Parts: sequence; structure tokens; C-alpha cells
Amino acid sequence: MEDAITTMFRATFTIEWGDCDEAGIVFYPNYFYWFDCTFQRLLRARGLSQRDVRKRFGAVTPIVDVHAEFRAPARYDDVLDIDAGVDLVGNRRFRINYRMSCGGRPIGNGYEVRAWALIDAAGAIKGAAVDSAFLALLRGEN
Amino acid sequence: MEDAITTMFRATFTIEWGDCDEAGIVFYPNYFYWFDCTFQRLLRARGLSQRDVRKRFGAVTPIVDVHAEFRAPARYDDVLDIDAGVDLVGNRRFRINYRMSCGGRPIGNGYEVRAWALIDAAGAIKGAAVDSAFLALLRGEN
Amino acid sequence: MEDAITTMFRATFTIEWGDCDEAGIVFYPNYFYWFDCTFQRLLRARGLSQRDVRKRFGAVTPIVDVHAEFRAPARYDDVLDIDAGVDLVGNRRFRINYRMSCGGRPIGNGYEVRAWALIDAAGAIKGAAVDSAFLALLRGEN
Amino acid sequence: MEDAITTMFRATFTIEWGDCDEAGIVFYPNYFYWFDCTFQRLLRARGLSQRDVRKRFGAVTPIVDVHAEFRAPARYDDVLDIDAGVDLVGNRRFRINYRMSCGGRPIGNGYEVRAWALIDAAGAIKGAAVDSAFLALLRGEN
Repeated sequence: MEDAITTMFRATFTIEWGDCDEAGIVFYPNYFYWFDCTFQRLLRARGLSQRDVRKRFGAVTPIVDVHAEFRAPARYDDVLDIDAGVDLVGNRRFRINYRMSCGGRPIGNGYEVRAWALIDAAGAIKGAAVDSAFLALLRGEN
Repeated sequence: MEDAITTMFRATFTIEWGDCDEAGIVFYPNYFYWFDCTFQRLLRARGLSQRDVRKRFGAVTPIVDVHAEFRAPARYDDVLDIDAGVDLVGNRRFRINYRMSCGGRPIGNGYEVRAWALIDAAGAIKGAAVDSAFLALLRGEN
Repeated sequence: MEDAITTMFRATFTIEWGDCDEAGIVFYPNYFYWFDCTFQRLLRARGLSQRDVRKRFGAVTPIVDVHAEFRAPARYDDVLDIDAGVDLVGNRRFRINYRMSCGGRPIGNGYEVRAWALIDAAGAIKGAAVDSAFLALLRGEN
Repeated sequence: MEDAITTMFRATFTIEWGDCDEAGIVFYPNYFYWFDCTFQRLLRARGLSQRDVRKRFGAVTPIVDVHAEFRAPARYDDVLDIDAGVDLVGNRRFRINYRMSCGGRPIGNGYEVRAWALIDAAGAIKGAAVDSAFLALLRGEN
């Protein structure tokens, strides 16, 4: 069962000249770069970084599954807002849901599913239940 | 109703140093760059380019929906094979299915759904039934 | 003869996870993406965009020459400041000088030389003396 | 004193849709991505990788200085050849010279200067004379 989606974090990006293709619209793989940036900024806003997650929880958060659907194109000079919310998926994965808009105009939606994986002494990783302290932190609940 | 998936095209990429992140694995947005490259190469292999599609059919193929799921990481120096097959989705969209592997080792799967959109005299675009000559060409049926 | 270099504009970027390579430092081509972004942001700060330059002056500013030297690496989470100043080079080119630092720590320097090229009725471009109104605008002198 | 420049290696790239900007020409930072790819492929062609350089010589090759000048634009679908030659610069640095062309049409030139840096037990790096076995290997002399 999944928790309700609530926006908890907004990251904002200016779409640059180099982000667009010959058609003058964003070359779509860049949206995933911004998804990842949003997740990383959310971590940092919660006082964590990928390195801190590793140090504090002995874990990494490999990407499992990613999706986006596009409603309207965005262009050079547009300011892109990405709103993010976090869901638990089963007990070993979490999903970051993204809603993209430019000045309130919907651009698209997407998500990343990430696994919670513990690193053992030999450096191997193994899936485990998402640490509840991590999830609470991500959600700004503590 | 969708047609059966058949691999019809393979594109191969060497994973470069700059494609990987600090964890030494491919930074995932790059996989979508390679999806798009595979689609463009498939077009070219069929004697088309995006510009030809525009000129010959008066159409563009905007991305609507994109997905990937990852089974195993790929690293610098790995040779990535992407196998592509094409499906019709409804009658106004088509889906390119991608299967990724490195030396036979599965890396992941994904797809792009693209719309068929005609450009009118004013430059506006409007969805339409995928041109059957285009689809046959893409599938190498003529 | 070249004018003296004066910093006139600062752009700031957060270095993202995806900008770094396996060594955990910025993959250097990204610095040029940020150079270009800085130039585009400078244009916008002066009320222009590439499209405005084209519309207002009938000109484009193709890149001719680009250089960077690196003093120290920058890493994920670092905040990169790029200070830019503009020089005239001969009378048909201008150079944007960039100084990069992270919290005052020098990272490197570089420049872009761009030509001033007018677009004729047939769409061909031809080098010309940099428009003095453009240069003054870029320098914030009016 | 520098050795004479001799082309010793060619890497070939297809320019992809996503590599071009709104003007329909290559977004220039991508040329540096291809410079780096060419260097990495040259290493691999000599039986090395960045990891092998580290393991075999205890060294890394940080970028110090990079330059490119552009003669003509390249576009989507163009096949870009990059010819590379290697020079010694002083005794602690080496330069990879790049000549870019599309079907014989000159696109531009550039270079990367890289330092030879040994990694000590604590992980710190320190400049040193370029290992002559490495240089000979790079040049295909053995």
C-alpha cells in the first residue's frame, strides 16, 4: 500500500540554450537530469548528501525504474519548477513523484523508483527495508 | 490493440568516462540519450532523418511518454547494445521498445511513446493517424 | 587593442551529482556548458536573448575560440561562481572572460571568443564590426 | 621543447539530434566530450584504461588546460572524425592535439594538456615527469 502523494519540495531550473534541440524545445533526457538534481537537492535540504546517506545509514539508493510523460514542451529561457513528493513502495523501495510546470503551465509528470540497499563489509549491496529514519527525514517529519 | 514486439534494429554504444557518475556507473539520464540516438539511427537506417520525416510526411514525432527499468549497472568501457522494436499504440502513436544489454548481460528495458503530428500551414501541429508508409518503413517492411 | 577586463556579471551554479565523473570531480566539458549558460544569462540580464539579438540586431554570435585552464577540482555539492567580463577583440569579435571559484577558492579561468555575424536576406551569415549598442548593452553601460 | 605533431589515432562519432542546439549546429561543449572520448579510446586502443593507468603506473592524468577553435559548424547526422596526436609539454605534462573534420571538411582544432600525477599512499597526488613507458605506449611505439 502506498502513502498519499504530497508535494514537499520544489526545485527550480532555468532552461538553458544548450538544453534544447533543433526544434527549440528541451531535449527530453535533460528532464531526467533535473529529476535527479531535484532528488539530490531534496536530500541536501534535509541535511544529507549521497555521501551522508552512505556514511550515516550504510546505504545507497540505486535507481530501479523511471518514467515521465510530457504534456507540453518547454523552451530556452523558461523557468521550470519541479515539485517532488515521496512515497514508500512496498517496504524496500521508495518513489519520488515529480510534477513539472513553467509559470503554472503544466509540462509533465514523472517518477523515480529507488531501492534501499545496504552495503556490506565486502562492498556488496543488498536490498533491505527502507530505513524509517531516512524516510521521515526525506519527508521533513523530523 | 498492439502488434507483437519484434527486435528489428540494434544500435551499439561504448560507455565513456564522462557518462558515469561518482559511483562509477552510468548516470541514468544518459540511457535516454541513447534511446533517442537509437531511434534516430533507426530512422537513418531506413533512409530517413527527422528532417526527412518533416519534408516527406509533413510530420513530427513528439515524445509523449518514456520509461526505463534497470536490472544491472553498466560501467565505463562497457559496450552497450540497444535492441529496438516498434509497436503501434492506438492509431495515433507508436512505441519504440528498447532492450539494453552488455555482452549479453541484461542491463534494462524501456520504451518511448511518440505521437504522429502533422504540421499545418501556420506551423501548428495536430495529432493524426500514424502514416502507414512511415510505419512500414520503420519496420523495414518495404 | 583590447579593453581592460572588468567583472560585470556573476552566475552561480550548484554542481550536481550527474556533473561529476568516477573520480568524483566535475567532468570538464561541463565547465563549458556553464560558460555558455553564463553568457546566455548575461544576455538575459541585459534584456536580450539569442532570439532578441537576432531580431533586434539581425545578428548571431557564433563561437570562434574557447579556452579553459583548471587550478583545482570542484566536486558535487560545491557552489560554483562564474564571474564574466567582456572585451572587444579587433572590431569583429568579442571575448567573454570567465573566472571560476567555489566559495572564494579559485577553480580556473577561461574565455569564449564570439564573432559578430549579420544574417542577410538569404539566411547567410557574414562577419561585421560588433554593434556598439550591443557591446554597450552587454557591458551594462546603458 | 615539444616533439613534432603526428596523427596517431582516429576516433569517429555520429553527431546525434541531442548534440545540436536550436540553431541546428553542435552545441560546442559537446566537442570537449568527444575530445575526452577520443583520449579514452586512444588509451583503450593501447591496452589501457584510466583504471589501468592508475593500477599500472600509480598515476592519474588531470586536465590542466583545454582549447578549441572552430572553423565551420557541424550538424545532426554528420560523421565527425577526430584525429589525435600526442606531444610532451615540458617533462611533466603531455598534450593531445585534436583535428576535427566531417568527410574531409575541416571543423576545427583543439588540444587538451594533461599532467602526469602520482598518487601517494595517502591518496594525495603530486606532479612528476611523464612516465616514458606510458608516453611510448600512447604513441604506439612499443
